Amino acid sequence: MSVMQYSTMVKRQKTYENEVHHVELLEGIEDTCGGIVVDMIKPMEPGNFIIALRASISQWKEQGRKAIWIKLPIMLVNLVEPAVKEGFQYHHAEPGYLMLVNWLPVSAPRLPVNASHRVGIGALVVNHDQEVLVVQEKKGKLKNNGVWKLPTGVVNEGEDISAAAIREVKEETGIETRFLEVLAFRQSHKAFFEKSDLFFVCKMQPLSFDVQKQDSEIEAAKWMPLEEYAAQPFVQNNESFNLVSKICLAKENDRYTGFSPLPTITAFSAKEIYLYFNHQYLSKIIVPTR
Amino acid sequence: MSVMQYSTMVKRQKTYENEVHHVELLEGIEDTCGGIVVDMIKPMEPGNFIIALRASISQWKEQGRKAIWIKLPIMLVNLVEPAVKEGFQYHHAEPGYLMLVNWLPVSAPRLPVNASHRVGIGALVVNHDQEVLVVQEKKGKLKNNGVWKLPTGVVNEGEDISAAAIREVKEETGIETRFLEVLAFRQSHKAFFEKSDLFFVCKMQPLSFDVQKQDSEIEAAKWMPLEEYAAQPFVQNNESFNLVSKICLAKENDRYTGFSPLPTITAFSAKEIYLYFNHQYLSKIIVPTR
Repeated sequence: MSVMQYSTMVKRQKTYENEVHHVELLEGIEDTCGGIVVDMIKPMEPGNFIIALRASISQWKEQGRKAIWIKLPIMLVNLVEPAVKEGFQYHHAEPGYLMLVNWLPVSAPRLPVNASHRVGIGALVVNHDQEVLVVQEKKGKLKNNGVWKLPTGVVNEGEDISAAAIREVKEETGIETRFLEVLAFRQSHKAFFEKSDLFFVCKMQPLSFDVQKQDSEIEAAKWMPLEEYAAQPFVQNNESFNLVSKICLAKENDRYTGFSPLPTITAFSAKEIYLYFNHQYLSKIIVPTR
Repeated sequence: MSVMQYSTMVKRQKTYENEVHHVELLEGIEDTCGGIVVDMIKPMEPGNFIIALRASISQWKEQGRKAIWIKLPIMLVNLVEPAVKEGFQYHHAEPGYLMLVNWLPVSAPRLPVNASHRVGIGALVVNHDQEVLVVQEKKGKLKNNGVWKLPTGVVNEGEDISAAAIREVKEETGIETRFLEVLAFRQSHKAFFEKSDLFFVCKMQPLSFDVQKQDSEIEAAKWMPLEEYAAQPFVQNNESFNLVSKICLAKENDRYTGFSPLPTITAFSAKEIYLYFNHQYLSKIIVPTR
C-alpha cells in the first residue's frame, strides 16, 4: 500500500467516525459539453472508490449531468472492474491510461466518436537537378529488396500534417525542408485491427542538400533522378505506388496543383488550425468576392 | 458464475487431476507482423488466466514472438488487472472491448501507433438554380441561433469519406447525391481530449431535390441561394466558416478544382482503396508519361 493510498484511507475513516452519513465525492471538472471529467490520479481502495462513485453519480444525476468520464491511469487498473460494474463503458485507451464513460440519462447516448484513423505522410522532396530524395528502410515490407521509396512516417498525437512531414524528412535523411502542398491522399481501412489510415503525399522544398541518413531505421538515403525513381519495377508494377509516382511527375513537369495549408482559427474555440485547399484560387478566397 | 465459466473451470480441474504439469495455453492467431493475437471470448477465472498466460508467454518467448495482443471484451473486465500485472499495457479501446499488448523482447517496442484522428465531412450540394442544401441542427453549438449550415457528420469505422458524405446528406435531408470532390480539408487538435480531427469539405451532385429532413437531429432543412448562405453574419464573422464559404463560391463560379477519388488497390494487401487527387491532370496520371 502506498503512502498516498494509506493517507486517503485514514482520512476516510476519520470522516466516517465524525459524520456517518458523509461520503466524499470524486472530484470532477466540467467539460465543454456539460459533462464531468474525473481525472483519477491518486490510488484509492476499490471499496472506497465504489462508495464515492455511487454518491457522486447520485449527485451528478440530480444536477442533470449526462456524460461522466473517468480517466484511469494504468497504475489504477484495480479500479477498472469496479467502474465497469457501476455501469461505465470503455471509450478509448492509450498506453498510459483507460478512459471510461457513463451516459446517465435514459436517452440514447450522444458521445464523441472515438478516433478511427491513424494519419501518415510521404514526402516528395525534389532538388534543382530534378532529383528526388529517397530512402531504403531497414524494417517493414520493403526492407532488403533494393526498392528506393519516399521518406514516410506517422503523424504524432497533436501534430500538424505539415510539421510531421518536415520532422520525418529531417529524421530520416537530415534534409531541412519547407512544406508546400498536399499532392494527394489515400484512405485505407483495417490498417491495424479495425482502425483506418489516411496517408498524405506532401510536396516539400529542400532547404539543405547534404544527406545524412538515420542509422536506426534507414539502410540508405540519397538523391535519385525522379524519372529513375518512377521507373523502378516495384513502382511500375504496383498500381497505387505507380499512381503516386505519376502525380509526383505531374507536379514537376505539368504544374499539377495540390492543396496548400492556410493558417486560420476555429469558430468556437479560437484554436489555430490549418485549412488545406487549392491555392490557385487564393486571390478569390481571401479577398471578398463581391 | 455463468454456465460457460463453470464449464471452463470443470475442464481445467480435470486437467489438473490427470496431469499435474500440464497447463492449457491461450489460443492465439498469428498477425501479419509475426505477433500473436489472443481474442478472449469465453470467461475464465483470473487465477487460471494468469497460469495460462504465464505458460503461453513462456512458449511465445521461446518461439521468438515479439508483440502479444490480448483483446478482452468488456464482460471479461475481471481479466484486465491480471493482464496488466503480467506486463501488458493498454493499446486502444472501444465501447465493447479493451486491447492490451505486451512487447516481449528487451528492445524498444515497435508497435502500430493508435488511431489519433476522428474524421468528419461537410457536404456542398448545389442544385441547378445555384441553391445550396442547408440545415439547422437541433443539437450542438449552432442550435437555436438561426444559422443555416452545410450538412455535416462523422465518418464511421471502416467507412470511405465519399460514402460517409453520401450517407450523411441522405440521413439529414433525404437528398440522394453523387460524390464529386474533396474541396478542402482542415486538421484541428484536441477535438476531444487529446485526439485530433480531420474535416473534409465535399462537393456533391444532387440526384434528387425533394427535401425531407430527419426529425431527431435536424430542426430544418432547405435549398438556399448560395450567395445568401455565404452572406450570413455568422459565416462572415467566423474566419474558417468564411474561408470555406469562399471556397464553395469559387467552386461554383470559378472552376475551382479539388481532389477527386480514384479507386485503386494497395501494394501489399491488395485492398481496394481510394486515392484522392487533382483530376485536372488525370490524363497525365493514368496514361504513362513516356
